[in-house]
Amino acid sequence: MKVATVTNGAPDGEMVRVSDDLMQMWPAGPATLQAHLDGAVTSKPDVYGPFQAARCHSPLPRAYQFLDGSAYVNHVELVRQARGAEMPDSFWTDPLMYQGGSDSFLAPNDPIVGDPKWGIDFEGEIAVITGPVRMGASRDEALTAIRFVMLCNDVSLRNLIPAELGKGFGFVQSKPACAFSPVAATPDDLPGWRDGKLHGILRVDLNGAPFGRLQSGQDMTFDFGTLIAHAAKTRNLAAGTIVGSGTVSNKLEGGPGKTVAAGGAGYACIAEQRMIETIQQGAPQTSFMQPGDRVQIWMEDETGQSIFGMIDQTVQAVA
Amino acid sequence: MKVATVTNGAPDGEMVRVSDDLMQMWPAGPATLQAHLDGAVTSKPDVYGPFQAARCHSPLPRAYQFLDGSAYVNHVELVRQARGAEMPDSFWTDPLMYQGGSDSFLAPNDPIVGDPKWGIDFEGEIAVITGPVRMGASRDEALTAIRFVMLCNDVSLRNLIPAELGKGFGFVQSKPACAFSPVAATPDDLPGWRDGKLHGILRVDLNGAPFGRLQSGQDMTFDFGTLIAHAAKTRNLAAGTIVGSGTVSNKLEGGPGKTVAAGGAGYACIAEQRMIETIQQGAPQTSFMQPGDRVQIWMEDETGQSIFGMIDQTVQAVA
Repeated sequence: MKVATVTNGAPDGEMVRVSDDLMQMWPAGPATLQAHLDGAVTSKPDVYGPFQAARCHSPLPRAYQFLDGSAYVNHVELVRQARGAEMPDSFWTDPLMYQGGSDSFLAPNDPIVGDPKWGIDFEGEIAVITGPVRMGASRDEALTAIRFVMLCNDVSLRNLIPAELGKGFGFVQSKPACAFSPVAATPDDLPGWRDGKLHGILRVDLNGAPFGRLQSGQDMTFDFGTLIAHAAKTRNLAAGTIVGSGTVSNKLEGGPGKTVAAGGAGYACIAEQRMIETIQQGAPQTSFMQPGDRVQIWMEDETGQSIFGMIDQTVQAVA
Repeated sequence: MKVATVTNGAPDGEMVRVSDDLMQMWPAGPATLQAHLDGAVTSKPDVYGPFQAARCHSPLPRAYQFLDGSAYVNHVELVRQARGAEMPDSFWTDPLMYQGGSDSFLAPNDPIVGDPKWGIDFEGEIAVITGPVRMGASRDEALTAIRFVMLCNDVSLRNLIPAELGKGFGFVQSKPACAFSPVAATPDDLPGWRDGKLHGILRVDLNGAPFGRLQSGQDMTFDFGTLIAHAAKTRNLAAGTIVGSGTVSNKLEGGPGKTVAAGGAGYACIAEQRMIETIQQGAPQTSFMQPGDRVQIWMEDETGQSIFGMIDQTVQAVA
């Protein structure tokens, strides 16, 4: 099953079901995706009409919880290198995760409003929505709690991160509202879903040019079951919890990644490309996002059909 | 106006209005406090019956956002000292704040379930619930967004904190579900509300003995307007955002605080008492909470009337 949320003026929007080919959408029964996750599903498969990505909000326009992991440890290592911070070896065995803001996500086509001085960057990620998870759940138990899979743009304000993380309490100002793909799909509808990971090519374009073509099933050190179990160690997780993978990042054997133009997999965030540039040319060449810059994030199946619809956002300077 | 949420099996419970003297409760119109905050209020003042704190959940049983500040900088300084971490001077001018878990709060009378090895501690705090706050709101604008005030027990797992904060991404496992007072009150119903702070005596008992009698209006370096504006610097805050003050802590002139038994204001968390014991006796004497230990947190008006009802929790070992 694939679902989306249509904006209707209410804070949680209106849930709709979406055909596998993203051509049709129709009422889903429960008024909202959160209500669906809370229980009481009654399906009403009346055809509603052509699927309109432009009318969609993030599948959960707001969530009671967003926990973002850093499962692609290669990314963590590079970003830490970029800001001159050491990475402990334990990061390869103990998942890194932060409690993210979840009260008002951006819609997949919303502008990213911010001050360019903040160092606006995108992060292409895979994310799952869980049902309830009990405290102390094992990795296998956590895996069965995954209800939907989607894509995420975890907007990051790079120039605010070092000072904020230096205070020791994690991200507040430096991780503003993020956005999700218009469509969320159940794992059984995703041929690339196995071993608690989504296997496929995460496509990222910056200003219309290929920026990342990353294998999301590769180099993911912690699968979603492990990430969810980590979060549930000391507390229950409510239905509607979103868990993110962290920036998808592939490691080239024997060295750092290459841009798509140079025949590599590229990157799912600008920070990583800047780090590679620093290593290879002594200084970053690519600037963070400026007003008017556009990022697109999506994934296709083997026939070229979009699986989750597209995150398509343009930066707008704060008034 | 005072409100509470009665548990009814649904995730958000049922909102009720509460009389100022905490004797009566009656239906509030909107089904839930979140719906009230989202808009569309229709008051139905049919008397519902005697107020029953034991039936109450936290006013928002789950929230889209919980941001916890550390406004009583004295507490931060002592706790950092206790875990051997330095405190930068900027902490006196730049608010410290973390994104807390908000998907499933404990009810005010729920047990605190955990492993005693985790170092279970309470933290007595003041908290506010906001309406919508726009990105970039000033301190004065943020103050007008405060809809309700309540008390909080921010449960903390002291022995998990150093390693988790050492990873640099803030709290996930070390700050499990917290609890709020049964009743939330609008600022205009609180004589002690002024300058963005709640003036009153925060009362904390541990196992029936006075542990803290703290002046919540004193030593609060950052008022709630400043805390909310800090959170809204780079993003909008949705209606139903909870902002916490951090552990209430009073500084004795010329030295560290004293226990209530010794004639002092005492403490709102065990960690702080342990720190003082370390300073005065070379080692902590008070252990963190053990199964069966009970904490009570409340506030009274000048006539001895409870303002918010009581948070009353007992520790229970995890199965």
